[in-house]
Amino acid sequence: MRHSTNLLRRCAAEAIGTCLLLVAIVGSGIMGERLAGGNVAIALLANTTANGAALVALILTFGHISGAYFNPVVTLANASRGGISWRDVSAYTTAQTAGAFAGVAAAHVMFGLPLYFASSQERSGGRLIFSEFVATFGLLSVIWGCTRLRSVVVPFAVAAYIVAAAWFTSSTSFVNPAVTLARAASDTFVDIRPADAPGFIIAQLAGAFAATYLFRWLVPALPKHATAVVVPHDEKIGF
Amino acid sequence: MRHSTNLLRRCAAEAIGTCLLLVAIVGSGIMGERLAGGNVAIALLANTTANGAALVALILTFGHISGAYFNPVVTLANASRGGISWRDVSAYTTAQTAGAFAGVAAAHVMFGLPLYFASSQERSGGRLIFSEFVATFGLLSVIWGCTRLRSVVVPFAVAAYIVAAAWFTSSTSFVNPAVTLARAASDTFVDIRPADAPGFIIAQLAGAFAATYLFRWLVPALPKHATAVVVPHDEKIGF
Amino acid sequence: MRHSTNLLRRCAAEAIGTCLLLVAIVGSGIMGERLAGGNVAIALLANTTANGAALVALILTFGHISGAYFNPVVTLANASRGGISWRDVSAYTTAQTAGAFAGVAAAHVMFGLPLYFASSQERSGGRLIFSEFVATFGLLSVIWGCTRLRSVVVPFAVAAYIVAAAWFTSSTSFVNPAVTLARAASDTFVDIRPADAPGFIIAQLAGAFAATYLFRWLVPALPKHATAVVVPHDEKIGF
Amino acid sequence: MRHSTNLLRRCAAEAIGTCLLLVAIVGSGIMGERLAGGNVAIALLANTTANGAALVALILTFGHISGAYFNPVVTLANASRGGISWRDVSAYTTAQTAGAFAGVAAAHVMFGLPLYFASSQERSGGRLIFSEFVATFGLLSVIWGCTRLRSVVVPFAVAAYIVAAAWFTSSTSFVNPAVTLARAASDTFVDIRPADAPGFIIAQLAGAFAATYLFRWLVPALPKHATAVVVPHDEKIGF
Repeated sequence: MRHSTNLLRRCAAEAIGTCLLLVAIVGSGIMGERLAGGNVAIALLANTTANGAALVALILTFGHISGAYFNPVVTLANASRGGISWRDVSAYTTAQTAGAFAGVAAAHVMFGLPLYFASSQERSGGRLIFSEFVATFGLLSVIWGCTRLRSVVVPFAVAAYIVAAAWFTSSTSFVNPAVTLARAASDTFVDIRPADAPGFIIAQLAGAFAATYLFRWLVPALPKHATAVVVPHDEKIGF
Repeated sequence: MRHSTNLLRRCAAEAIGTCLLLVAIVGSGIMGERLAGGNVAIALLANTTANGAALVALILTFGHISGAYFNPVVTLANASRGGISWRDVSAYTTAQTAGAFAGVAAAHVMFGLPLYFASSQERSGGRLIFSEFVATFGLLSVIWGCTRLRSVVVPFAVAAYIVAAAWFTSSTSFVNPAVTLARAASDTFVDIRPADAPGFIIAQLAGAFAATYLFRWLVPALPKHATAVVVPHDEKIGF
Repeated sequence: MRHSTNLLRRCAAEAIGTCLLLVAIVGSGIMGERLAGGNVAIALLANTTANGAALVALILTFGHISGAYFNPVVTLANASRGGISWRDVSAYTTAQTAGAFAGVAAAHVMFGLPLYFASSQERSGGRLIFSEFVATFGLLSVIWGCTRLRSVVVPFAVAAYIVAAAWFTSSTSFVNPAVTLARAASDTFVDIRPADAPGFIIAQLAGAFAATYLFRWLVPALPKHATAVVVPHDEKIGF
Repeated sequence: MRHSTNLLRRCAAEAIGTCLLLVAIVGSGIMGERLAGGNVAIALLANTTANGAALVALILTFGHISGAYFNPVVTLANASRGGISWRDVSAYTTAQTAGAFAGVAAAHVMFGLPLYFASSQERSGGRLIFSEFVATFGLLSVIWGCTRLRSVVVPFAVAAYIVAAAWFTSSTSFVNPAVTLARAASDTFVDIRPADAPGFIIAQLAGAFAATYLFRWLVPALPKHATAVVVPHDEKIGF
């Protein structure tokens, strides 16, 4: 009973957080492209600035409620080390995916576009798959590596990594299956063709798996729970 | 007596802080537009960088004096939870609005423009109203969600959110009735037509209300006072 | 004896820090202008990014040695409240000015320009003077307001303010007499005509004076020493 | 035995961290140049944003494992003060150099380029050598100056310095022999001609030496170990 209310709240936090994250990704992509006068680098600069800034704010906002994963792959990595129970994983990933689709729709409404429309942006080929592997390997390394710091700067490290990875990978770093699926329903600056989504998701899972096992060896005393936000004085969540 | 001196100081802090915030918003909007050679994305990049940076500095500067709300909607949300007494609300919102108009005038003087001149920028339609609702819902979520952290990084989270929201909303995120009114008196990069201001303000109130009630349910143990800055060791303000 | 070694070290820190700050301001101004292809907003974006980033690094580096003022006006404001003794003020301001001129020369050498050459950039008129007054008023407000936080985030607040002020003032915020004099010896992106320097410096002194007196009233319990960096556990400097 | 496992882990952290850093430097250089439509300032803005953001994330991730030097010159400076034993220096520098070359190759693969190809970018002449000296002098000043703070903000100071230095030096601040060698194997935005590498490396060593000796005098009580990341409560690394 108590656990179910608790889980409902945590899933609401994951859904709302992932929703606002997708609003930020898709909305700033549309705005950046419309204003940039054809210069794609300026559009991407605006898009990555908005994504990184939104991530800082959202992780700090929802981190102490649900962990602020906003990402099925991060949820699975935590489950593999006991940081979240396996029975909560499906509720989390469902909430994240639903939130991601809601966020895409909200951004489309704001900018006067149809709710959903399939993307036509081809993102295929071995080097993009490799790129997603590297990007997600890096993300999980940052998460596992920083989690020991137990510091409020960790959300800044995660957001900084995401900003950098959007620039240093040829796939622009989706690193998140829920985000990948939802962006396949948007034919805008940040989209991906549905047919290319499965390859991206497999690469993301593989990258996360590799980083999780690497850090098991690198830091044997690693905490079980990779969370970015720690409430001061180890205070428990209030419900 | 003591309370009235105290309130005078707090209102002075709100007025000066909101004034400097508007100087930053309007001044950087003018400067960005003048230098950007017609590329609106570059002008908005400059404008949002300046706004976010100013917000970090001003919240850290005035937070421990007045709470550094700079925003009637944030003031009301705090009053609804008992974080500020209802009798102080009108003094606060008056100070914020007066400060906002003074800031617009100061920016206009710096850049050789008339003190005030009505804006002609149309910002109307349901999707802009929806956009302001989402933007203010997000802002109050960040404020209520982060306030539990009691950390000096909270002003960075608020500023990061504002930078992101300027890019991911089609209304460029006014999120503040005092700012909305004052920007209606400026026919520059960041302006809004006076006729469109009421719709924006109603959407801002609705968004703030929704987020405040959501977080009452999400985090029952939420502190009553949503303040971004906490003086170390719970030290009280010195007067 | 001991005091003189101590003062020598502190002045060396002020000189080296101000030198590196001017290298950053002048060097990034030249680089930004050369690469920006005529778009002044992009050049200023590069210049302000570099200035803000350098300031964060330099205040954190030299703050616990000398206070990291790098600015005669900040030095005087501290002396007026007893944060630095009046007999040290002339040594500090001499070190800052010498460092500023050395920094301009170093930047010129790096970029293949003559050591010094008088600027021809006119920056005169009442609104630029007003602009410098506002900019320095804001800077000293941030310094006095944040100094109570005793937190490592204060250098970030100061740097964020400087980035914002470069965009929201029509004078691009010199806010520093040593910087104003040294930039008069550089005919590059960031220069000022020698004849216009005195007006700027008087406005800077007036702005600093106004903010210092305002904060005396706003925060009666303000610490005497406005320093951005506090070594943890109130540990004294090691010499 | 125990030391050798420990050293293997630390070298793995240095290698992986330096690898990801070079992926960020080279990858974002390629991406920025491809998208910037010929405006070099926009490409460099993207490149430096990605480098700074990656550095924040990577230092926080690997700092508590290996110190996160990612740089032979920083390794030597630490050894000169006893912060790392001399017998570990060659293992560290080998790991850093190998990681740097792997990172260049990974970036090339992602973007569909040959694994390695010699650079043709001439970077020679006294003012570039002087520029590298200044850049590395500044970097080591920041590291030695900030190390006393024992704060999680130090990685932000180091990254901020690197962003600034890329803009204020005419050599764009390589400041790292491993990075210099690896970038000589890349004919992209961030490359250097192999023939020019030795001059750069000598200047880097001289700059690091000068800053290390300066801070010995400036701060006699300086800790022996210049590390950016300190695990809270002086907790030792868990192996």
